[in-house]
Amino acid sequence: MHVLTVCYGHPADPAAFDAYYESTHAPLAGKIPGMASYTYRRCASLDGSKPPYYLLAELSFASADAFAAAMASPEGQGAGADVPNFATGGVTMFIAHD
Amino acid sequence: MHVLTVCYGHPADPAAFDAYYESTHAPLAGKIPGMASYTYRRCASLDGSKPPYYLLAELSFASADAFAAAMASPEGQGAGADVPNFATGGVTMFIAHD
Repeated sequence: MHVLTVCYGHPADPAAFDAYYESTHAPLAGKIPGMASYTYRRCASLDGSKPPYYLLAELSFASADAFAAAMASPEGQGAGADVPNFATGGVTMFIAHD
Repeated sequence: MHVLTVCYGHPADPAAFDAYYESTHAPLAGKIPGMASYTYRRCASLDGSKPPYYLLAELSFASADAFAAAMASPEGQGAGADVPNFATGGVTMFIAHD
């Protein structure tokens, strides 16, 4: 698997982030072609302190080629272009691969 | 799902990290009771630069209670105690939960 791992920092307005993510960004990301799975989860620390990220999204692809094709698609480009519209706490993205 | 997300920083000696992780740590982690899944993947950046982490491990549990029980078990304690034996690049852990 090639997993696009998207780590969102804590937003300035969590409620606004949540509303935008669920109403607008997740539907855009969900249209990216060729995904094996798409999940997003809120983060919590192990000790009750503030966790390093607010939300972790994972977009899985069966291969590097499938990932590259997805990112190059209009839907992939559109979802990527939408990130600055709501990621007020910054974002760290990387690939986690077998 | 409650996913214990373990982000390993870049180790001083990647080959030694890999050897220890696969021969010793992964078998220990694999014995933790009650996991729905356990995966670990190497990290790569999107632009060819050094990614923020070296390896990402994810231990999934069906509930917060299952996670807590697993961490309190001898196997969970043992796997946790083993981390300082090889994580020379540091480690960041958090929970990602639905």
